[in-house]
Amino acid sequence: MPTTVPALLADAAGAAFHRGTVERRDLGPNDVAIDIAYAGICHSDIHQVREEWGGAIFPMVPGHEIAGTVSAIGSEVTRYAVGDRVGVGCFVDSCRECEYCLAGEEQFCLKGNVGTYNARSYDGEPTYGGYSTAVVVDERYVLRIPDAIGLDVAAPLLCAGITTYSPLKHWGAGSGKHVAVVGLGGLGHMAVQIAHALGAEVTVISRTRSKEEDGRRLGADHYVATSEEGALKALRNTFDLIINTVSADVPVDAFLRTLRVGGSFVYVGLPPERQSFNAGSVIGGRRSIGGSNIGGIRETQEMLDFCGAHGIGAVIETIAADEVTEAYDRVVDGKVHYRYVIDTATIPA
Amino acid sequence: MPTTVPALLADAAGAAFHRGTVERRDLGPNDVAIDIAYAGICHSDIHQVREEWGGAIFPMVPGHEIAGTVSAIGSEVTRYAVGDRVGVGCFVDSCRECEYCLAGEEQFCLKGNVGTYNARSYDGEPTYGGYSTAVVVDERYVLRIPDAIGLDVAAPLLCAGITTYSPLKHWGAGSGKHVAVVGLGGLGHMAVQIAHALGAEVTVISRTRSKEEDGRRLGADHYVATSEEGALKALRNTFDLIINTVSADVPVDAFLRTLRVGGSFVYVGLPPERQSFNAGSVIGGRRSIGGSNIGGIRETQEMLDFCGAHGIGAVIETIAADEVTEAYDRVVDGKVHYRYVIDTATIPA
Repeated sequence: MPTTVPALLADAAGAAFHRGTVERRDLGPNDVAIDIAYAGICHSDIHQVREEWGGAIFPMVPGHEIAGTVSAIGSEVTRYAVGDRVGVGCFVDSCRECEYCLAGEEQFCLKGNVGTYNARSYDGEPTYGGYSTAVVVDERYVLRIPDAIGLDVAAPLLCAGITTYSPLKHWGAGSGKHVAVVGLGGLGHMAVQIAHALGAEVTVISRTRSKEEDGRRLGADHYVATSEEGALKALRNTFDLIINTVSADVPVDAFLRTLRVGGSFVYVGLPPERQSFNAGSVIGGRRSIGGSNIGGIRETQEMLDFCGAHGIGAVIETIAADEVTEAYDRVVDGKVHYRYVIDTATIPA
Repeated sequence: MPTTVPALLADAAGAAFHRGTVERRDLGPNDVAIDIAYAGICHSDIHQVREEWGGAIFPMVPGHEIAGTVSAIGSEVTRYAVGDRVGVGCFVDSCRECEYCLAGEEQFCLKGNVGTYNARSYDGEPTYGGYSTAVVVDERYVLRIPDAIGLDVAAPLLCAGITTYSPLKHWGAGSGKHVAVVGLGGLGHMAVQIAHALGAEVTVISRTRSKEEDGRRLGADHYVATSEEGALKALRNTFDLIINTVSADVPVDAFLRTLRVGGSFVYVGLPPERQSFNAGSVIGGRRSIGGSNIGGIRETQEMLDFCGAHGIGAVIETIAADEVTEAYDRVVDGKVHYRYVIDTATIPA
C-alpha cells in the first residue's frame, strides 16, 4: 500500500509552490525508504518547473539533490541498514542491461535513465523528487554519505558535486595541471573546491571581482575578472582544462586561446543560445570543446568519498518550505551563495 | 655560395605560375641537399598563392609535399647519405628548445616553426617550397621515405598523410572502433586508407554516391550520401570518431548526434565560416569537437613507415609544370582524384 508523504508541489508551469502530498510506492524487496533531511535547489529545477525545457509533468515535486537517513529497507537490500546516512541524485532507475549501465555509467543508459522527478518510471508512473519528507528508491541508485559531511552541505553534492567532479576526473585535473573554472555559482564553487583538492592549480574566471574573496577561500590560486580589459588575452596558452559553468553565451574562441596544446573547454552548464567558434581555434594546438553531464552511480559514490576525505561540502543557505518560490528568483538573478538547501522538516503543513 | 635552381613562381596574389629560379642556401654542416622528384599540390597552397590567408610573401614558390633523393650532405649529417629517398613536409625549422620541440611535436613549437614556403627563416630569409628541382633542409626536418612507396605517391603523405594519421592515432582509431571520414578528397582519401589499415571500421560520408566505388576500394566498409533524406539521422550513436576533411560549413549538431558516448568530431580542414552548435550536443554523451593540424617530425616518420608497411600511397594524377595554374582551379572545383603531383623534371625552362 503506497504511503502518502508531505511535499512541495507546483501545479503548472511557473506556478508558486504549495504544500501538499505525494504517494511513495510500497517498499519493494530491493528498495530503501529514506527520510529526507535536506534537498538542494538546482538551477535545472527552475527550468523544469517553468517548463523551459518542454514536456513537464504537473503537479511537479522537484529535487534531485537529496540527503537523509534510511528509515526502512526491503527484504533483499544488502548495502544499507536503517539509520544509514544516504543520498539520491539525478536518476532513480536505468535499464541495467546496456553497456553503459553494466559499466556503472548509468548517465548514458541507452534506454534512458529514469529522472528523480518530472520523469516516468519504466511502468509509466510519474516520479516525484526531493522537496518532500520521504522517498523510496532502489538501493542500486542510493548513495552513501560519509560521516564527515553534514547532510545539509552534502545534498548539493548529488548533482552539483558529481557534475563537476566527473569532467575534472575525465579530463585529468590533478597535480601539474592548470584548471580554469568559468563562473562561481552552484556548479563553479564545487568545481573550484574539487579541482583544488585534486591538486590542480585553479583559476576562477568571473565577470567581476565581487567573488574574489570567496573564490580564493574555496581554493582558487588565481582570480580573473573578464570585465577588465585584456583579461583573457593575457591568459594565452595557460590552461589544460576549462570547466565552463555559465549557462549563457560566452566568447568561445577567446577561451580556446587560453588553452594549452591539447587543452579542453568543457560545458557543464547548458546555455540556450547556439555556441559558435572558428574551426582554426581547435585545429591550432589540437584543442577540444567538450561537455559533460552528471555521472554514474559508481563515480558519484567515489565523489562523495573524495569529498568526505577532503572535508568538501557545498556552501549553502538553508531555507524553509515557504521561501522556495522566492528563492527561485534569487537563483536566476545569481544572488545565492552558493546553493539553497531546503530544510524538509518545514514542509509538513 | 648559394645555388640557383629552377622553380615555379607566382609573382602576386592569384597570379599564374611562371618558370624562373630561386636561390638555395649553401650546404651547412647539418644540411641535406635534395633533388626534388615530385611535389604535391595541397589545397592550402592555393589559399596562400591567392593570399586568402593574408600576409603572403611574393614571389612565392609553394609546395610542402616534397619527395626526392639526397644529392649532397653537410659535414655533420649522420642520418642520411647521398642517394637516400627522402621527403620534406610543412616546416623546415623550429626553435628546438621548447617543450614541444623537445617532445618531437614541432607542429606546436612555441616560437612558431618555419614554414617550408611563404614563411621566413629565423634569420629573416623567405622560404621557397617544393615546386622546384632542389631544396636544402636541415636533416632534423627531413623524413625517410620507405622503399615500398613510390616517390610520386609518397609526396602527398608529407602533408595529407600526416594531417589525417595524427588525429586518427591521437583519438584512438583502431580495431573495434568505428571511424567516419567526412569528404573524400585529398585528405579524406588518405584518412580512409589509414583508418582501414589501423583496423577500424570505416564509413565514408560524402554529399553524393559519386565516389562510392572509390571509397570502398580505398578501404571503406560503408558509404553514406548526405544528399539522401535522413541519412545522418539513421546513424545516431554510431561513430567513435569523425574526421571532418570538408573545408566548408557542415551541420555540426547532426554529426555530433552520430557519435557514440565519448566520441569526437575532429576538424582537419579549415572552413572559413564560423561553426555553430548546441552545447547540449556535447553535454549529452560527453562528446567533443576537436581539431588537428599536421604532426611532428617523429610522428611523420612513423606515418611514413606505417604507410610503407601497409602499401599505402596517395591516389595521384601527375602533371607537368605548365599545368599547375589550371590544376588549381580543378582542385577548388573538387575535380582532382585525389591529389595532383607535379613532376618537377618538367620545371626547368
